[in-house]
Amino acid sequence: MIRHICIILLSAFGFMSCNTPVKQSHTAAKADSTTIRVAVLVYPGVELLDFSGPAEVFSNTTGCEVYLVSTVNGPVGSRHNILTMMPDYTIHNAPQPDILVIPGALVDSVTAAYKDPEVLRYINQVNKGTKMTMSVCTGALLLSKAGLTKGKIITTHWAVVDTLQAIDTMATVVKDKRFVADGKIITTAGISAGIDGALHVVEMLKGIKEANAVCRAMEYDKWNPAAGLVVGKTTVISSPVKQSTTGALPAAGTDPVCHMPMKKGTLITAMYKGKMYGFCSDYCKADFVKNPTEYVMDKK
Amino acid sequence: MIRHICIILLSAFGFMSCNTPVKQSHTAAKADSTTIRVAVLVYPGVELLDFSGPAEVFSNTTGCEVYLVSTVNGPVGSRHNILTMMPDYTIHNAPQPDILVIPGALVDSVTAAYKDPEVLRYINQVNKGTKMTMSVCTGALLLSKAGLTKGKIITTHWAVVDTLQAIDTMATVVKDKRFVADGKIITTAGISAGIDGALHVVEMLKGIKEANAVCRAMEYDKWNPAAGLVVGKTTVISSPVKQSTTGALPAAGTDPVCHMPMKKGTLITAMYKGKMYGFCSDYCKADFVKNPTEYVMDKK
Repeated sequence: MIRHICIILLSAFGFMSCNTPVKQSHTAAKADSTTIRVAVLVYPGVELLDFSGPAEVFSNTTGCEVYLVSTVNGPVGSRHNILTMMPDYTIHNAPQPDILVIPGALVDSVTAAYKDPEVLRYINQVNKGTKMTMSVCTGALLLSKAGLTKGKIITTHWAVVDTLQAIDTMATVVKDKRFVADGKIITTAGISAGIDGALHVVEMLKGIKEANAVCRAMEYDKWNPAAGLVVGKTTVISSPVKQSTTGALPAAGTDPVCHMPMKKGTLITAMYKGKMYGFCSDYCKADFVKNPTEYVMDKK
Repeated sequence: MIRHICIILLSAFGFMSCNTPVKQSHTAAKADSTTIRVAVLVYPGVELLDFSGPAEVFSNTTGCEVYLVSTVNGPVGSRHNILTMMPDYTIHNAPQPDILVIPGALVDSVTAAYKDPEVLRYINQVNKGTKMTMSVCTGALLLSKAGLTKGKIITTHWAVVDTLQAIDTMATVVKDKRFVADGKIITTAGISAGIDGALHVVEMLKGIKEANAVCRAMEYDKWNPAAGLVVGKTTVISSPVKQSTTGALPAAGTDPVCHMPMKKGTLITAMYKGKMYGFCSDYCKADFVKNPTEYVMDKK
């Protein structure tokens, strides 16, 4: 369907920025080269806030075009048919997005979705062309089944952490994080956390000023960027543990927390009592920084 | 359409409570006497999160049945047609709910809605039978146009506070509150604040334990009941201003903050330096408690 970006000054509403797509007819999307296209995957039983939260965030972001892509033809009902919707495309005719959002559902509904090889093929194929691919809640199960979480640090709804870990034993599934960003793969905690994850994506693509403007428009004063884990991001460490600034590798060849082989050339390091330690991830580093004696004492 | 309450133990998901409606066919709703029916009004241009946030909250609440009621026949598009939905009923055939949710939109869309006298008639008529009637964001304009906010303390999106006050000069429009509960009329701040307002309704109807269980299911760790203003609710005031515990009326006949005549028998009181003061509302009382000398000094 034709969409064009309609730049609207929402003066009556007071929104700071709001370029939003206007759906006009059922032909291919038109967008200029600066448009960020956001595809939100929906399927029978999808959780309402899992997809509407991120869709709200991106629809309030300058230059974003949001469209819904369904795994099935015809109307799609959200969990227990609270909402019946008519998506814009199916996985067989949707245009390539810059951002792919994969929301969650009850496990039965997610399972039904990933049992369709066409759904996994779509996710895998589309991911190759995205700037970021993001799951919300149990949407991480779909992401894992599509093979996109191997070796990654990821998260999901608190109730399915073990289920997700069992699906992808090569991933590190963490909890108590609103979102985790590992490269271009973004995963979030349950349901409402999709809003926070989407705001992180906006921050990454458009800057913190734009993300804050979206928060202001949505009156979402609850976003805390620090509630997410951004793998590999430089963090400021308080004394006596200090961030390495030399770029030199630590002497030890294993992560002192998980004891896994340390990546060669890792920049995820911390100095403690004159010795530099390297970590496989920010997650291990964070644990170390919280209580270094626990891990250093183990080695004595 | 026939709906029945399907009590599902979401063991795979780990949700603590979740009785949610299952839509089965297009005839009248069936519900037992304990069911809380939640009607969510939608109209062309409605803001996505304004209605999906509360719908998500109520759909995770034990014994709630959620349905969408449209002001128009046929499919309804949310703001800029981000989502096209097929509501369950129209305002001409929807069953009487216990809770009516009136979401907002851009001012142009809200204005188009309230210019239809049938819409205002529906809101006014249905409100007579509700336990609570709740607006989100600019939905408060519809509530006011229907004549339901006169003499009430209310709130809305920060950008339309003045617009709302101009529509209803008999109401007191406040800002910087996530939600305001004045009797059975609940109003909320913009967009995402609908989640907080809906959680307050759940707390009022089902208790704080249920509200917290919904938060846990949604991973919405951000709900702060104290971020709302509940008119007439007893608050604990720190020294030297003390909450009256005698039930006696203060000697002065006017609110020391707004100088309006004080309600006879008001329980909204505070003791300061041995003298009891009465207030027209919690809002004035809160201002007084923050800085009592400002108001007491004025009287000297």
